[in-house]
Amino acid sequence: MGREMELKAYGMPSKYEAHVTRNRSDVLVNKQKWSDWSMTPLQHQQGIITPNGLFYERHHAGVPDIDPAKHMLVVHGMVKQPMKFSMDDILRLPAVSKFYFMECSGNGLTDWKVVKSKTVQQTHGLLSCAQWTGVPLSWLIERAGLGDGAKWLLLEGADGAAHARSIPIDKAMNDTLIVYGMNGEMLRPENGYPLRAFIPGWEGNVSVKWLRRIKVSDKPWYLRSETARYTDPMPEGKWRQFSMVMECKSVITNPSGGMKVQGPGVHEIEGFAWSGNGTIKHVDVTIDGGKTWQEARLEEPVLDRCLTRFRFLWDWDGGPAKIASRAVDSTGYVQPTVADIDKVRSLTGFVQHHNGIFPWSIAPSGEVANAIA
Amino acid sequence: MGREMELKAYGMPSKYEAHVTRNRSDVLVNKQKWSDWSMTPLQHQQGIITPNGLFYERHHAGVPDIDPAKHMLVVHGMVKQPMKFSMDDILRLPAVSKFYFMECSGNGLTDWKVVKSKTVQQTHGLLSCAQWTGVPLSWLIERAGLGDGAKWLLLEGADGAAHARSIPIDKAMNDTLIVYGMNGEMLRPENGYPLRAFIPGWEGNVSVKWLRRIKVSDKPWYLRSETARYTDPMPEGKWRQFSMVMECKSVITNPSGGMKVQGPGVHEIEGFAWSGNGTIKHVDVTIDGGKTWQEARLEEPVLDRCLTRFRFLWDWDGGPAKIASRAVDSTGYVQPTVADIDKVRSLTGFVQHHNGIFPWSIAPSGEVANAIA
Repeated sequence: MGREMELKAYGMPSKYEAHVTRNRSDVLVNKQKWSDWSMTPLQHQQGIITPNGLFYERHHAGVPDIDPAKHMLVVHGMVKQPMKFSMDDILRLPAVSKFYFMECSGNGLTDWKVVKSKTVQQTHGLLSCAQWTGVPLSWLIERAGLGDGAKWLLLEGADGAAHARSIPIDKAMNDTLIVYGMNGEMLRPENGYPLRAFIPGWEGNVSVKWLRRIKVSDKPWYLRSETARYTDPMPEGKWRQFSMVMECKSVITNPSGGMKVQGPGVHEIEGFAWSGNGTIKHVDVTIDGGKTWQEARLEEPVLDRCLTRFRFLWDWDGGPAKIASRAVDSTGYVQPTVADIDKVRSLTGFVQHHNGIFPWSIAPSGEVANAIA
Repeated sequence: MGREMELKAYGMPSKYEAHVTRNRSDVLVNKQKWSDWSMTPLQHQQGIITPNGLFYERHHAGVPDIDPAKHMLVVHGMVKQPMKFSMDDILRLPAVSKFYFMECSGNGLTDWKVVKSKTVQQTHGLLSCAQWTGVPLSWLIERAGLGDGAKWLLLEGADGAAHARSIPIDKAMNDTLIVYGMNGEMLRPENGYPLRAFIPGWEGNVSVKWLRRIKVSDKPWYLRSETARYTDPMPEGKWRQFSMVMECKSVITNPSGGMKVQGPGVHEIEGFAWSGNGTIKHVDVTIDGGKTWQEARLEEPVLDRCLTRFRFLWDWDGGPAKIASRAVDSTGYVQPTVADIDKVRSLTGFVQHHNGIFPWSIAPSGEVANAIA
């Protein structure tokens, strides 16, 4: 055994944990290799907090390098008085800290009806959870003063893509935050440093990163990210727009694809449940592919629009098994199967908002595999 | 603005945040420079979770390099059946995750009656908070079976100092955890990788890191860390031993020593309150050096033996001020002043367990300074 003589001013994980990293999907890699995403290793995550170094990321034009001393946030459009805020202005305001999950609308899109991905990092890793610190957006808007007829606002980022989204004014004024902190420290560059929007319970891309501009209007902008992207195909060739809530969902993370269950006997099945509409009320687990369900235990604290960890003791007889979880949220909504979703939407192409029940098969050898199809 | 082309498999803070580090105390530095401590920059911490890279550390003989594939935990002594657990054995058990603060018994010892330290990192930075994941120690002890008359157990680490402590069996069986995870990932090397004890609400050094051995006995061991160290001088020349609970305490982190308040007007005073005996029920703030007190707001979630953030809006008139916080926990215990503590203990030499009310002075220039004396 060696000894480390020097204290590390900012610590890092053990060298024996070098395999615990966020990774690109094996399935979807673009040519440029930099307008990209990376996924959280949920199979290794403990508790409900995702370490900042493993928080999933998605960006359309790389990560901008923004000096916080020069960064400004502008509020204009249908307001009584346009405003400009420096980071110092925002940091001086009273703050709030909230635990919330964040999930990409595309989480799971590779695995609707065919098996494309092996691990839960690849199937569900566009999901993370943090304690966010910042100010309610309503405080900034109230300083500017809403103009008559204001119904939507634009959030625009300072990245190369100038990614932007239209947000209904009610949501913006209700619980949207302008955040600078995650998990106790300033945002990481890839997660929006120094300033981003955070819209609780909604798909990640509306929580615009590197936020530089907010414009108020009486209608949405119908941007590329609201017409060509982030829309959902429906029956009869129609497309659903502004489907921004992430509905109730759950997944078993242990055991999960690529793992090996170490022989018959008692094992703990565990995973995450979450809902963009409230708290998790109930999670059931099946070990027989959905024939029967048993109640899992929810670990405290169970927080609003936050990851909730569920645990279930399973005495494996060593035979083939098919395990899955099904969550119910505080609105009474029950996580659907893919077949349920298929009845009301059109599951063709690049389909987002996959909150279907997700099964893993376990072979007598103990090998765990994606069993979505 | 540049762009980062490569995704980082494990992310790091922005280069603009390079000043946010844990540091040695400026006051206490030993000659070897490696049996040492480092302190959390509480003045920069947001929310209640300390990022793992900034979690405080204290070790008596550096950080051992332990291969988890070879690490073993032995349980022996007054047990029916001695047991040996590999990391795989422990990781296979059902787990629990809990949010708890951790504080060194020596936190604050430089600043009882004289001003030695400038910042809250130096006065209170041997304090951090995480979500810990592991197994109840009772599960391991129950497998071994307690022998008749068992009353204490020894926790021993695999560091160069073989740091060890005696723990009463009731506490060990009640809520002590054997943990491998903090804040969603495996423990950092300096925080006990791959395995440590976690004793909720008690001084940090009893939560033995790099845990390799648990021995059960009918009496304590009276080790060096229980006689020459980690004891408290009392009146009439006596020394108090096994004073392991961290009593109710609070501190204002913003504004705090070394900061400058940016002119008269409304400012948010914020800080942390915590208690090893339960939850925080109430925090009061004074702006006039203790003449009058006003109630602060506690931010949810308020959890058992966890950091609780309090917030208080202060309209500064620009005159000299002296600010401090006073916490009350769920047992009704009120955080004392140093003068209160001085009446029942002997505040001479290297005195630990400083949970006194801690004031900061604010000059008309806005400069904030340590006002403990």
